[in-house]
Amino acid sequence: MPIPETMKAAVLYDFNDVRLEERPVPAPGPGEALVKIEACGVCAGDIKIITRGMPKQPPMGEFIIGHEYAGTIAALGETVDEFKLGDRVVVEVHKGCGRCRNCITGKYTVCLNYGNSAKGHRANGFTTNGGFAEYAVNHVNTLIKLPDTISIDEATTITTAGTSLYGIDMAGGYIPGDTVAVLGPGSIGLMAIQCSKALGAGQVILTGTRDNRLALGKKLGADIGVNVKKEDPVQKVKALTGGRGADFVLVASGQEASLQQALEMTRKGGDITILAHFEKPVMTDIGLAVKNGINLYTVRGEGRMSCHRALSLMEEGKINGKSLITHTFSLKDINEALATFVERRDDALKVVVHP
Amino acid sequence: MPIPETMKAAVLYDFNDVRLEERPVPAPGPGEALVKIEACGVCAGDIKIITRGMPKQPPMGEFIIGHEYAGTIAALGETVDEFKLGDRVVVEVHKGCGRCRNCITGKYTVCLNYGNSAKGHRANGFTTNGGFAEYAVNHVNTLIKLPDTISIDEATTITTAGTSLYGIDMAGGYIPGDTVAVLGPGSIGLMAIQCSKALGAGQVILTGTRDNRLALGKKLGADIGVNVKKEDPVQKVKALTGGRGADFVLVASGQEASLQQALEMTRKGGDITILAHFEKPVMTDIGLAVKNGINLYTVRGEGRMSCHRALSLMEEGKINGKSLITHTFSLKDINEALATFVERRDDALKVVVHP
Amino acid sequence: MPIPETMKAAVLYDFNDVRLEERPVPAPGPGEALVKIEACGVCAGDIKIITRGMPKQPPMGEFIIGHEYAGTIAALGETVDEFKLGDRVVVEVHKGCGRCRNCITGKYTVCLNYGNSAKGHRANGFTTNGGFAEYAVNHVNTLIKLPDTISIDEATTITTAGTSLYGIDMAGGYIPGDTVAVLGPGSIGLMAIQCSKALGAGQVILTGTRDNRLALGKKLGADIGVNVKKEDPVQKVKALTGGRGADFVLVASGQEASLQQALEMTRKGGDITILAHFEKPVMTDIGLAVKNGINLYTVRGEGRMSCHRALSLMEEGKINGKSLITHTFSLKDINEALATFVERRDDALKVVVHP
Amino acid sequence: MPIPETMKAAVLYDFNDVRLEERPVPAPGPGEALVKIEACGVCAGDIKIITRGMPKQPPMGEFIIGHEYAGTIAALGETVDEFKLGDRVVVEVHKGCGRCRNCITGKYTVCLNYGNSAKGHRANGFTTNGGFAEYAVNHVNTLIKLPDTISIDEATTITTAGTSLYGIDMAGGYIPGDTVAVLGPGSIGLMAIQCSKALGAGQVILTGTRDNRLALGKKLGADIGVNVKKEDPVQKVKALTGGRGADFVLVASGQEASLQQALEMTRKGGDITILAHFEKPVMTDIGLAVKNGINLYTVRGEGRMSCHRALSLMEEGKINGKSLITHTFSLKDINEALATFVERRDDALKVVVHP
Repeated sequence: MPIPETMKAAVLYDFNDVRLEERPVPAPGPGEALVKIEACGVCAGDIKIITRGMPKQPPMGEFIIGHEYAGTIAALGETVDEFKLGDRVVVEVHKGCGRCRNCITGKYTVCLNYGNSAKGHRANGFTTNGGFAEYAVNHVNTLIKLPDTISIDEATTITTAGTSLYGIDMAGGYIPGDTVAVLGPGSIGLMAIQCSKALGAGQVILTGTRDNRLALGKKLGADIGVNVKKEDPVQKVKALTGGRGADFVLVASGQEASLQQALEMTRKGGDITILAHFEKPVMTDIGLAVKNGINLYTVRGEGRMSCHRALSLMEEGKINGKSLITHTFSLKDINEALATFVERRDDALKVVVHP
Repeated sequence: MPIPETMKAAVLYDFNDVRLEERPVPAPGPGEALVKIEACGVCAGDIKIITRGMPKQPPMGEFIIGHEYAGTIAALGETVDEFKLGDRVVVEVHKGCGRCRNCITGKYTVCLNYGNSAKGHRANGFTTNGGFAEYAVNHVNTLIKLPDTISIDEATTITTAGTSLYGIDMAGGYIPGDTVAVLGPGSIGLMAIQCSKALGAGQVILTGTRDNRLALGKKLGADIGVNVKKEDPVQKVKALTGGRGADFVLVASGQEASLQQALEMTRKGGDITILAHFEKPVMTDIGLAVKNGINLYTVRGEGRMSCHRALSLMEEGKINGKSLITHTFSLKDINEALATFVERRDDALKVVVHP
Repeated sequence: MPIPETMKAAVLYDFNDVRLEERPVPAPGPGEALVKIEACGVCAGDIKIITRGMPKQPPMGEFIIGHEYAGTIAALGETVDEFKLGDRVVVEVHKGCGRCRNCITGKYTVCLNYGNSAKGHRANGFTTNGGFAEYAVNHVNTLIKLPDTISIDEATTITTAGTSLYGIDMAGGYIPGDTVAVLGPGSIGLMAIQCSKALGAGQVILTGTRDNRLALGKKLGADIGVNVKKEDPVQKVKALTGGRGADFVLVASGQEASLQQALEMTRKGGDITILAHFEKPVMTDIGLAVKNGINLYTVRGEGRMSCHRALSLMEEGKINGKSLITHTFSLKDINEALATFVERRDDALKVVVHP
Repeated sequence: MPIPETMKAAVLYDFNDVRLEERPVPAPGPGEALVKIEACGVCAGDIKIITRGMPKQPPMGEFIIGHEYAGTIAALGETVDEFKLGDRVVVEVHKGCGRCRNCITGKYTVCLNYGNSAKGHRANGFTTNGGFAEYAVNHVNTLIKLPDTISIDEATTITTAGTSLYGIDMAGGYIPGDTVAVLGPGSIGLMAIQCSKALGAGQVILTGTRDNRLALGKKLGADIGVNVKKEDPVQKVKALTGGRGADFVLVASGQEASLQQALEMTRKGGDITILAHFEKPVMTDIGLAVKNGINLYTVRGEGRMSCHRALSLMEEGKINGKSLITHTFSLKDINEALATFVERRDDALKVVVHP
């Protein structure tokens, strides 16, 4: 299939000003491939970029947003033999510089050359152009071959799943039989439930404020849903664990109260991973962590091989991305797609855009 | 239910001389409980003890063998409030001394005071009396409460499952999406397959010499069975992984060839855990491990919380012990039970004895 | 040497009411030894107990305080062959129950049966009687043989060193060449400096408010001392690391500002261990940890083999406890010793009491 | 200083046929720098290449050997701002492809694209041209800035130190107070001693066959040297550890007996790292590892940040490379330098060549 010279793309012109424009189709360099995009999900990160901006993002008027996409390989750059034309692929976000201390030791999501594309860093949809477009260029490090059994739409949830899974990995990754509490039934939290179960967790407890989300969580594998408007989540978790507390707590809500709740509901000697982005400082009884021997791990986005691993879990039917997708739009309706997500119209969870 | 003064017990009198005798019912000390045994499995370790002996075992004429048992709590020693009378329980083997460097740091299966019961070490069925009897005393560390959904017979396979799981834990315990090869379709190997899948492994490959065992392995979750009499297992694993090799290999066969096969079929940078007991030195190209950056982990028996974790997997229906049980006998027929296991009569796999 | 029937001991009668009394010399049980105490240090933990109390402490009127002591073995309980009469020994605090999940996996400082001595837990000077006395009973787990080259007085600093060392261990323990920042030049901080250097750290930066303490820190191995009253510690650490931040930060000050400073001065992908006890909740920009991929580890007291390891470092001359000891008192002057410590008379750092 | 068009270089023409020739000075590409070489050490790896060849090496007649070199930056490729002209630098060997599973997770010494320079892998002196020449090109990943206090000659030992250090890292990296046994007093073993001590090891025991090497080992920090021709090393290590065995054993000798000795002298629950390249399969009682809960780690060459870390230890005076250098030659005498190393003339240890 011939590659056109131009494509439709959603370009950020200013805060809250996204325009669908005609742009040149980019060309892949060495180690890169051109992806014909078939679907791209909306993520809270996109909204942050649109409303407030993020560090190192491309200039207004040039920046094509979107980072949760999937499609097919349309062209190969030099040296790429990992893929062939027509391969169905899904992307992850971070490609490290490969030359800083963090990249060399496998921590490329916190690359010390973040945003320095001359040195090889890329985070499509954050520091380089992304996926609300017909085409995008990706380095092979951020491309994963899709099994036939996973649809393109479902594949757009892989970054979400990879983030949750990396959060488990960061805290050791070995949780069979553990009681796991997940705070926050957003996309990350709902994937965290599923990944926990897929890794053999015992009792999985989900907390949140909306009953329908808690119900979805239970459908996806949570054993118990706790509506924090009706019950004290700390007391509930204690009651469900013989007073001992959860072995592992995943904080997937950036609400001020969530970190303190996590500290109070974790077993002595247990672990916490923070997956949520806290926008403001929070008041926390950190002394409780010291007293109880609790360690706190953090992840920002997917990392290591977590998207590859998540894809395997999805292929095996152990995690489900389809259930998170509530809305789909055409790329020409990008602004309606974004508004649907932001305003949570019809309880929007994952909104997917088709170019 | 009143506890009798004496009980039936299978006592080792000499090599290959096991006799059913009447013995005093033991009394639990502080931190211990008396278990009314309802089932006890036969393990290769029992046969080793019977035929050749093992270090630190009790004297001939006194030693009651058997270590894979389950039953109900019949009496409680001082300070025990973790259990109550009538609780259904399964046991694990090792209770460390709690005072050597290894026990203090959680490595109690390699207790430096192994066999020193004065200092607090116990390994029922190895260094202290075990479970081919109507009653046995266990420290609370080696007792786990059984969920109602797990039968006593199935519970006897928990030590086996815990051993396999500990082998995965030792190598990091985080294997979602990995290709795992399991060498040897005995009880340990068949549990290793199931535990690998339960922790999210991708492709699981089982190798062995008997087609019916390989078929059972596939029923229990292996994606591929390789009969090493018909196919070269190294070539097969390479072919199934695009030439790269398995990410993780569990050696559950003590055959001379298995370690070398493991080294050759493991991915550069991959891991091996040895679960099998090699009786004799083996010729191994260890330089291959160095060249390929492969680490080798070992476990002897269940450890850390692995039996607790395995029980949770069993309760969740992710591992199955029932399928391993091929024969059951009454305690009075202990010698026939042992012979059935040793001679692999009717392809015996797990043989369970009921007091 | 005959053991008397009674001994002098500092007994807590009420908050801020410590009395020197005559008490029976305790007798060691199985696995325990009687220690003839020759020196016991004053720790901030003692002051907390005296002024406000701590959980699970013995009743007022019975509780003999003090936990940093050294002396000689005066009597052995049953089964103890790890020591012989007259051995010079130093103690550590925590002896776990040996039967909860945390103890079984080596996390005995956060024993789930904390304070339950019937089940085997002991924390001398916290939940059981301690060392401001002529004799105390210790389990062998909390006794370490002293090399001849280490004095009894210096030995009283081992728990402090062990705590700092455990804090490094908890974060991975592998720091050669790393830039380490230590916040707070108290005993723990001054030992943290030394342990960091003893494990091969590169640049070690100490922050605090008192110039003489910073000077002592530099004498003990810190490369740079930063007086936070005169310089911004975050800016200084950034300047000293090419803008990158410290690879590892040890928080040894419970001041409200210290945790936030730690988060801001840590390298992306770096680690923080919190050694200080924060009495009150603190306002923290935890989102910075998430954004920068920073994990936070905690320790409460010495753990695993850290006191054994610290003693080896002291024997090798790599850490120095003598320099921390500023005052010595006789046991009869226990209240003056405590006051000297609390009021920091003559810049008191470590105050040692001799029975 | 102007860069000439050609340079002197030692080119491998055939097995055992190294010729000094005039070759074009190479030009650095993006992310690379040109190094003016001032010294290059001879390593056993060079000899293996010369006598038998290694996988993926450049063609005969083109291949410039040598990989342990240091010098100054003579030219910078695009995007390189990590260095400036004239910087004194030392090199390490491995630059991974940055795109295989191993590189992405920090295991670049076992890159799955080893030898594929199109995809970005380089191992100068192994798969690309190296350092027995006046100039070489290095990727910034393999360049480390030298502190003023370290001489160029001493710097050539950094790869050796980095390899030993990586071997400690691989087994956990936390060894304060541990008894460490090092088998083999070659360059790697002598650095392993020093790195162990620099990380706080307690007793360090060195074994070997030559008294002068053992004496050098003791000068460099070993507490005990054991001549295996005179004493049984296993018995000796057991005697020095109260019968318990060494906590950690580093195998730096590829002699057949060394692995078995390591297994027998390691504490139950202890660790072994294999640093030596075993050319042939060895007979090993691997069952002993299983029985005693011993894990075996391997490293091939320096990895992660180990050369950076080793350089810091050298700068701090904790490891010493100068003592290993026994001979220096001019590049024109490369064949005599190689012969001196191979034949161990005058007990040659490290032989350094100056272009």
